[in-house]
Amino acid sequence: MGQSLAENLNLLDGIVVSTLVDVHEPPHLFGATAYASLDEVPPEQIDVVVDFSQPASVVSSAQWCASHRVGLVIGTTGLDAAQRAAVERAAASTGVIMASNFSIGAVLSERFAAMAAPYFERVEIIELHHDRKVDAPSGTSIATAQRIRAARAAAGRLTPPEPTQRFTLEGARGADAGDGIQIHSVRLPGLVAHQEVMLGGPGEGLTIRHDSYDRISFVQGVALAIRNVDASCGFIWGIDDFIP
Amino acid sequence: MGQSLAENLNLLDGIVVSTLVDVHEPPHLFGATAYASLDEVPPEQIDVVVDFSQPASVVSSAQWCASHRVGLVIGTTGLDAAQRAAVERAAASTGVIMASNFSIGAVLSERFAAMAAPYFERVEIIELHHDRKVDAPSGTSIATAQRIRAARAAAGRLTPPEPTQRFTLEGARGADAGDGIQIHSVRLPGLVAHQEVMLGGPGEGLTIRHDSYDRISFVQGVALAIRNVDASCGFIWGIDDFIP
Amino acid sequence: MGQSLAENLNLLDGIVVSTLVDVHEPPHLFGATAYASLDEVPPEQIDVVVDFSQPASVVSSAQWCASHRVGLVIGTTGLDAAQRAAVERAAASTGVIMASNFSIGAVLSERFAAMAAPYFERVEIIELHHDRKVDAPSGTSIATAQRIRAARAAAGRLTPPEPTQRFTLEGARGADAGDGIQIHSVRLPGLVAHQEVMLGGPGEGLTIRHDSYDRISFVQGVALAIRNVDASCGFIWGIDDFIP
Amino acid sequence: MGQSLAENLNLLDGIVVSTLVDVHEPPHLFGATAYASLDEVPPEQIDVVVDFSQPASVVSSAQWCASHRVGLVIGTTGLDAAQRAAVERAAASTGVIMASNFSIGAVLSERFAAMAAPYFERVEIIELHHDRKVDAPSGTSIATAQRIRAARAAAGRLTPPEPTQRFTLEGARGADAGDGIQIHSVRLPGLVAHQEVMLGGPGEGLTIRHDSYDRISFVQGVALAIRNVDASCGFIWGIDDFIP
Repeated sequence: MGQSLAENLNLLDGIVVSTLVDVHEPPHLFGATAYASLDEVPPEQIDVVVDFSQPASVVSSAQWCASHRVGLVIGTTGLDAAQRAAVERAAASTGVIMASNFSIGAVLSERFAAMAAPYFERVEIIELHHDRKVDAPSGTSIATAQRIRAARAAAGRLTPPEPTQRFTLEGARGADAGDGIQIHSVRLPGLVAHQEVMLGGPGEGLTIRHDSYDRISFVQGVALAIRNVDASCGFIWGIDDFIP
Repeated sequence: MGQSLAENLNLLDGIVVSTLVDVHEPPHLFGATAYASLDEVPPEQIDVVVDFSQPASVVSSAQWCASHRVGLVIGTTGLDAAQRAAVERAAASTGVIMASNFSIGAVLSERFAAMAAPYFERVEIIELHHDRKVDAPSGTSIATAQRIRAARAAAGRLTPPEPTQRFTLEGARGADAGDGIQIHSVRLPGLVAHQEVMLGGPGEGLTIRHDSYDRISFVQGVALAIRNVDASCGFIWGIDDFIP
Repeated sequence: MGQSLAENLNLLDGIVVSTLVDVHEPPHLFGATAYASLDEVPPEQIDVVVDFSQPASVVSSAQWCASHRVGLVIGTTGLDAAQRAAVERAAASTGVIMASNFSIGAVLSERFAAMAAPYFERVEIIELHHDRKVDAPSGTSIATAQRIRAARAAAGRLTPPEPTQRFTLEGARGADAGDGIQIHSVRLPGLVAHQEVMLGGPGEGLTIRHDSYDRISFVQGVALAIRNVDASCGFIWGIDDFIP
Repeated sequence: MGQSLAENLNLLDGIVVSTLVDVHEPPHLFGATAYASLDEVPPEQIDVVVDFSQPASVVSSAQWCASHRVGLVIGTTGLDAAQRAAVERAAASTGVIMASNFSIGAVLSERFAAMAAPYFERVEIIELHHDRKVDAPSGTSIATAQRIRAARAAAGRLTPPEPTQRFTLEGARGADAGDGIQIHSVRLPGLVAHQEVMLGGPGEGLTIRHDSYDRISFVQGVALAIRNVDASCGFIWGIDDFIP
C-alpha cells in the first residue's frame, strides 16, 4: 500500500515524495531518501507526513509531527481509544487529517445518500465485498446509515413501520441500522469493495452505487488531504470538508 | 388478474378465450360467454381451463376437469396440503399443469443459476420487492436456492466455510439457505419483483437478474402451459419442461 | 394520466382537487365538479390549475390563469416556440411552474451527477426505456449531459481525449453529448424509464441510477409545485428550486 | 500474465508447471526449469504447452508441439490468417485448444444469452471496459451477438422492426450487430471488463452480467483446457465443449 501510494502521489502536480520510512524493509522510490524510522528524518526536509501503517506507529508519527509542527495525514485504521486520544492530543500542536476512506467517490456517495434520504419513504443499503473480509456490515455502510438517519431525523421524515412479515428463513431482511434502514452484506470471491444505497418512493427508485476496483482510488483523496493539512488546522476527521 | 390474463391470452395465435367464470361479478370479454360457476359451463365448449382464483375454487375446478377430461392450468397459489392432494388425485383422470410462477424469464433465470452454480465458489441471492410484500424471503428465491444446492451437490462442489466474522450489526449476512447460499430480501416502495443471483469465483462474477415489471409477463408462460396440457399428461409442476 | 394524478393528489394533506376539466369525456372524482372547458370554471373555486394535457390547451390555460391571477402548474410537453412564448407572457400576470419531469428522484439524480462530475475523469450516461419510445436519446439524458458539462466547465475539468479507437462496428460508442460525455440509449419491451450516470476515475466508479416504474412518481413533485406556485412567482422552469 | 498464470496453475491439483519459457528474460517459479526457447526444452519433460505470448511465437510453439506430439493450449490473440492457418495445420499432428477468453463466467454468460434469446422479443448488449481499450465494440460482445442471432434464427424468432425514431443526437442507439441487436460500448477509467446482455419481453427483463475484475479469472479455464487437450483431439476453438 505505502509503496503504491508513494509512487502515485509522486506523479501529481505540486507533490514531491521526498522521504520514505519503513521499519521492516528499505522502501524504494527514485529521488526519495529512505529511513528505517521517522526519528531519523530531518524535519526541515518535509511539509507533511502521510501514515498508512500500523496503529502503534501512528502514535509515534503524531508525536513527532507535533514536536516539529509538521502536518500529518493518517489512513491507518484500527486505532484503539487510547491511540486515538494520543493522536488528538498531538493535533493540539499541529494539523492532523485522519480518515477511514480516502476515496472521493465514497465520500460523495455517502453525501448524496444523506441529501436524498429525506425525499424517499424508505432506504436500504447493500454492501458487497470479497469473501476474505472478516467483519460485517462494512464500516462504510454503518457510517452511511448513520448519516442517512441524521438527515431524515433533521427533516422530520421517519420511516413508517413495515407490514408484519412472515419469515420463511430468519435473517433475510438483513441488519437493522435504525429507522428502518436495513443493511445487507454480500461476500463473494471476485468482488472488491462496492456499496449501493437504494432509496424508494411511490413508483420510483434512486440508487447510488460506489465501486472500488483498486486501492489506487485513494490517491486523489490523500492528495486532497496533503494540500489541506497545515500546522494550524487541528484535528479533522474525513476529507468531506475539502470537497465543496 | 383474470380479466387482464383473458384479454392478453385472447390476442395470441391459436388461443380463443371462449368462456369466463367468476363467482363474484360477471366478467366481460368480447366474444366470450360469462358464467357464475364452472358447473354451468358446457364442457364441449372448452379444451383447457385456466384457474387463477382461490385455493378452494381450484379443487372444484380440478374435479370438474377430471370428470370431463378437460386439461387444467393452475396459477393459484397458497393451496394447503389437502387441496394440493385433491388436485393431484384429479390429475389421475386429466392433465394438470400447476406453477407458482409463469414468467419464462423467472424459469430461465432459475435454470441458469443452477447450471452455473457448480463452476463458482460461492453464490448469493438478492431478491427485491415492493414494501407491501408480507413474507421474506420470496418463494422464488427459496426455490432458486434449492436448485442451486442440488446442482452443487450433484457436481460435488460444496461451499467452503466463510472466515469467522465479527458482526457489528447482527443479521447483515442475510438468511442462510444451506450450503453457504445467503438470501438477502430488500423491500422498497416503487420496486415490483426482482431477483439477482450472484456467483463469484477467482477474479470474476456472474450475475443473473430477473425483473418483473408487470404481471403481463405471465401471459407467455400460461400460453405455453395451455398449448402443452392434455388429458393424458398427468400432474406437472412448473412450465420448465416446455422450455427446451 | 389526469385521472390518476387527480386521485393521488387528492389524497395528500392540504390539497383538495375540487375541479376537473376534460374536453373529451367527463372525468370523475368523488367530491370534485367536472367541466368540459376551463372557461366554464368559476375562478374563485380554485387556487391552482394543474395542466397535463395538450400543447394547444396549455396556451388557453395560461391565458385563463393570467386573467384570473390563478397559479398554473404545467406538465404538458411538446410545446412549440410560439406556445412556450405565450405561456411565458401569461407568467407576467401570474405564477407558472413548468417542468418536463416532476419526479423528485430524477431531479436529485441530475443534481448529484452535476455535483460529482468535476471529481471524475470521464462520464457516460445510459438511458433505458420501453421499445415504443420514438426519440433517442431521452430529453432527460440530454438535460443531464448539459448540466454535467456546465459543472465540469465551471470547475475547469475537461475530459481528456480518448485513445484513437478502431471500430469493428460503427456507432458502438453512442452519441457524443459534448466534452466526451457519451449517451447510450437502450430500448427493450418490459422496461419503463431508467437512467444511469456512470462516473469513472482511477480505480473507482460512482453510478447514479434513477428508475421510474410508474407515473405515480410524478405526484410528489406536482404537489411540491402546487405548494410553491403563487400569483407573484413569475415563470419557473423545473421543480429544482423547491428541493433544497 | 505468464508468470501469474504459471504460479496459479501450479497450485491446482494434478497440474505441475515443470518448465518455463521466456525469450526476453528468465522467468522464475520454484521447482520449474527455465529456458529461453521452446527448442531447448526436452519434450519428454512435458505433456502440455501453454502459450500466452505473441502471435509469431505461437506458430513456432505449434510446430514444436506437432513434431513432438505434445498438446498445446493457446491464449495468445491477434493472430493473422496465415498464423492461424499454420496453427490449424499443426493440429493435424497434435491436439490444440485455442480461445480468446478462458473465463468460465464469460463462456456461460454467452451460452445463457443464446439459450434465452429465442424467448424474448428484443436483445441489447452493454459492454463496459477501462478507457485505455482501443477497439469497440469488444470482441466478446460481437461473438455474443453472433450466437444470439444464430439461436434466434434457428428458433424462427426474428426481431420486429423498431418504431421509426427521431434522433436528437446521432448514434445514441449504438452499433447494430444484426437482427436488431444493439451493442453499446462504455469506456471509463476504473472499470475492468464487464458485459451485460439484456433481454426484454412483455412486462419482464432478463439480464446476464459478467464481471472480470482480474485476469486470475482465466486460470480455471486454462486448467480445463490442459486437462482436456491430448495429441488426438485436433483443433478445438474455445473451452465451451469442456463445460457440460
